[in-house]
Amino acid sequence: MSFKTDIEIAREAKKRPIQEIGAKLSIGSDDLLPYGHDKAKVSQEFINSVQGNENGKLILVTAINPTPAGEGKTTTTVGLGDGLNAIGKKAAVCIREASLGPCFGMKGGAAGGGYAQVVPMEEMNLHFTGDFHAITSAHNLLSAMIDNHIYWGNELEIDERRVVWRRVLDMNDRALRDVVTSLGGVSNGFPRQTGFDITVASEVMAILCLATDLEDLQERLGSIIVAYTRARKPIYARDIKADGAMTVLLKDAMQPNIVQTLENNPAFVHGGPFANIAHGCNSVIATTTALKVADYVVTEAGFGADLGAEKFMNIKCRKANLAPDCVVLVATVRAMKMNGGVAKGDLGDENVDAVNEGCANLGRHIGNLKSFGVPVVVAINHFVSDTDAEVQAVKDYVETQGSEAILCTHWANGSKGTIELATRVAEIADSGVSQFAPLYRDDLSLFEKIETVAKRIYRADDVLADKKIRDQLKAWEDAGYGNLPVCMAKTQYSFSTDPNLRGAPVGHSMPVREVRLSAGAGFVVVICGEIMTMPGLPRTPSAEAIMLNDMGNIEGLF
Amino acid sequence: MSFKTDIEIAREAKKRPIQEIGAKLSIGSDDLLPYGHDKAKVSQEFINSVQGNENGKLILVTAINPTPAGEGKTTTTVGLGDGLNAIGKKAAVCIREASLGPCFGMKGGAAGGGYAQVVPMEEMNLHFTGDFHAITSAHNLLSAMIDNHIYWGNELEIDERRVVWRRVLDMNDRALRDVVTSLGGVSNGFPRQTGFDITVASEVMAILCLATDLEDLQERLGSIIVAYTRARKPIYARDIKADGAMTVLLKDAMQPNIVQTLENNPAFVHGGPFANIAHGCNSVIATTTALKVADYVVTEAGFGADLGAEKFMNIKCRKANLAPDCVVLVATVRAMKMNGGVAKGDLGDENVDAVNEGCANLGRHIGNLKSFGVPVVVAINHFVSDTDAEVQAVKDYVETQGSEAILCTHWANGSKGTIELATRVAEIADSGVSQFAPLYRDDLSLFEKIETVAKRIYRADDVLADKKIRDQLKAWEDAGYGNLPVCMAKTQYSFSTDPNLRGAPVGHSMPVREVRLSAGAGFVVVICGEIMTMPGLPRTPSAEAIMLNDMGNIEGLF
Repeated sequence: MSFKTDIEIAREAKKRPIQEIGAKLSIGSDDLLPYGHDKAKVSQEFINSVQGNENGKLILVTAINPTPAGEGKTTTTVGLGDGLNAIGKKAAVCIREASLGPCFGMKGGAAGGGYAQVVPMEEMNLHFTGDFHAITSAHNLLSAMIDNHIYWGNELEIDERRVVWRRVLDMNDRALRDVVTSLGGVSNGFPRQTGFDITVASEVMAILCLATDLEDLQERLGSIIVAYTRARKPIYARDIKADGAMTVLLKDAMQPNIVQTLENNPAFVHGGPFANIAHGCNSVIATTTALKVADYVVTEAGFGADLGAEKFMNIKCRKANLAPDCVVLVATVRAMKMNGGVAKGDLGDENVDAVNEGCANLGRHIGNLKSFGVPVVVAINHFVSDTDAEVQAVKDYVETQGSEAILCTHWANGSKGTIELATRVAEIADSGVSQFAPLYRDDLSLFEKIETVAKRIYRADDVLADKKIRDQLKAWEDAGYGNLPVCMAKTQYSFSTDPNLRGAPVGHSMPVREVRLSAGAGFVVVICGEIMTMPGLPRTPSAEAIMLNDMGNIEGLF
Repeated sequence: MSFKTDIEIAREAKKRPIQEIGAKLSIGSDDLLPYGHDKAKVSQEFINSVQGNENGKLILVTAINPTPAGEGKTTTTVGLGDGLNAIGKKAAVCIREASLGPCFGMKGGAAGGGYAQVVPMEEMNLHFTGDFHAITSAHNLLSAMIDNHIYWGNELEIDERRVVWRRVLDMNDRALRDVVTSLGGVSNGFPRQTGFDITVASEVMAILCLATDLEDLQERLGSIIVAYTRARKPIYARDIKADGAMTVLLKDAMQPNIVQTLENNPAFVHGGPFANIAHGCNSVIATTTALKVADYVVTEAGFGADLGAEKFMNIKCRKANLAPDCVVLVATVRAMKMNGGVAKGDLGDENVDAVNEGCANLGRHIGNLKSFGVPVVVAINHFVSDTDAEVQAVKDYVETQGSEAILCTHWANGSKGTIELATRVAEIADSGVSQFAPLYRDDLSLFEKIETVAKRIYRADDVLADKKIRDQLKAWEDAGYGNLPVCMAKTQYSFSTDPNLRGAPVGHSMPVREVRLSAGAGFVVVICGEIMTMPGLPRTPSAEAIMLNDMGNIEGLF
């Protein structure tokens, strides 16, 4: 049995002109700013014009803790969107843009897979409509203006040792993690130690994805803390007078991108913040726009539900006043088996016991999601090696959790594989049973917010944080930042901070290593464990095999 | 008397859909890849399809040595293009793209001025179609892969002290000129001193602008020398296996961009290499494509004719097998006066003697250009303060040089101001009088090539180069690079290497400070004087005043 690769399937796609895709959502040609024939941005004017529309239903796709077996969260998001369209609903999907850098390392694309993909896949994995390049430019303009301010006399009295704003590149380049700049003498400034992060880790990315309009964008950019004085007074981007020019650089990037699924249904693809030090969801402006023009909007959150869905609910929904009408939790039989202790090499063998064992992970996510007041449907993303008994074991288990699991075959069959899921999700969303509320109130203390997530989502016994960290949180509260939500940065592979603790661990503590204030984005980052904000390339980077073939097609990018 | 600013005029432009502009050159909608409604790329398929067409006439616009008074080279290029269209000719202009970084420092845009502009001006000064971002990505991917190669065992035995490939950003950021990377311990690699240049200074930019197609592009990228071993063996980009992925990143950027003038005539805007360490012309592929679809193509070269036109002739025309049919040399009365010793503050006063004095600079450029076998017309770009007597003085002087000068008022009047110039240029181009040949043969030694340019263009008495430099040139000849042209990097403000020596200096020597091999671009860079490849921001960067106004328009970018 042989399968076509994702890129082969993507290349065979019968794409429709993007104007036809826009028309499905009543977006006229004049309101679509085309980028080639199959990508477009939706104009700000159009977005303004639909603000009076009723909102459609919002469906969040999230997943169990990721395993090397793969879950297919984006694939399911796309498959469900196509399924809803197939049963006659006006539906759109909202997903994140891919980061360029990791494509040259080893990561595949982020546009779904099999017959549930968004196209044009190659452009989406390369420059796409230039949004990330604009973010890189805006971020680095601020960096240059900070050093330039110091160079010309440092009127703001920035402590050079306390410049917290680094630089970014959309590239996996470990050599840039830790650098000394401004060497070479007087004309190059004052040497200091700093570094580069990958663009998706920029606070500018998080801001773009949370801003409701250009005015809000500029306000948030201006609120970025870039440095401190010796007296620890924060210096903001607006003190450096960079917020206006940064907004200008991001003007086009703020307009959501629209492309299409393999089945020619509309897909918004916009923004892509890190899911650890940021909130990991596509942009608010894409989601809110989609809700104004579609009856059903299917979106996703990064990593597993403990990180991604938690942030979607507690950060994105809180800030943007959104409320999911239904949550789809993606699981695979293979991932259940890995959570049940099976090694990757043995995943092909039927093992119902391991499935049952691994379902504890699934069960905890279901419970967590219900604690937000939202109805949950489990989507079992089918793999050819799954046996009927294994699938039934998952279904039976989910029923014991007061939920339901539906087998989906969108990877192989496109929308035909999600008819049952789409039908049920639409029913639930339409029923109005969702009673969404974020997990904690704004007026809880920052530490209490951390504890709430740690205990109610991660099921940790306690939070370990030394005095310095508690004092820092207190200081931010005194400075007026106490009302912000917390953005947890921990391993995606476990409920705990130990990536090897699969399943549903208990009895663990959650140590907080560091806290950071993202004053522009509007959250406090809580770092639990090592978080890498600039990846490196592997021994044999995929870039070595990426090239144009004789037909002019791109090879090696997948 | 009050004038509208360039940006006010640009905003009032009645732009036509880019498909209409393409249609003027018989480029169909399917062959235009739109970027919004007023910018497009011309597809590779279309370019391939017109290779059998006859070439149109090629007209180069160049200028005297720049002064702070301004000459208006791009403005004249655009005005002449519009003038040719106004007299019924099928004409297109070919100019360079603007660099993003300097727009936030103090430099204005690069899209012409007054009523001789290319639009959309703001997008052209910002991200445009993303070409420069693609170049930044391709350049830095190679950088990351070099350090990654060393990190994983350094199989190629790169001498870490002899990595010559730096990184780039399209940003004025002096702090990045000289940096130490890979600090922070084992997992970040081997610390070494390196730096960043601005993107337009990247050899990738020069390569993109000289490559004839994607195959040639990849070949040239592969030929970039990135480092040397301890035994001084060169390591190429293709040894690092980066050439394929770099080509993929540049695939879209290789397609020329088309926009329009204020008078809705087609303008190709593509590529923008530095005019000192590179050749300073728009891309070969834009020029050759324009020649296949227009009867007259007006293009420009960077800086004054001593640098820009010399490189256009000796590098671009040589490499791309082009031959200009007519050269337009732009001068202003004000610049003549400055060359004649008048200070900037006194330019408003009539001073025929100073004009006569300053004409020596103009005269030398005319002579130089004629030595390439091309006919020369002087365009006097009119300023309101010019008096009739001053203009007549320039005309009279030019006549003594066996050429002719024509007064142009395109800044104030658009094509109406260049009817006479356009008519005369078309006559000359059609007449076939041009007998173009580069100034030196491929088989001259590298040092003899340097001497030829220094003595015949700069009129230096001799070239000063120490043994180390002469030995280096000899070594490159032995390695097979002796057939390359030389790319001179010196001040643009004087024929000599002293920027204060205006007019037509004699008796000077030309010291060569350094030579560099751009093996991918295909030239040897000869550095005479300080050349800055990463600009800084001024005390009050223009970025501080760039912002969106209440109407959503961009303020402060001009």
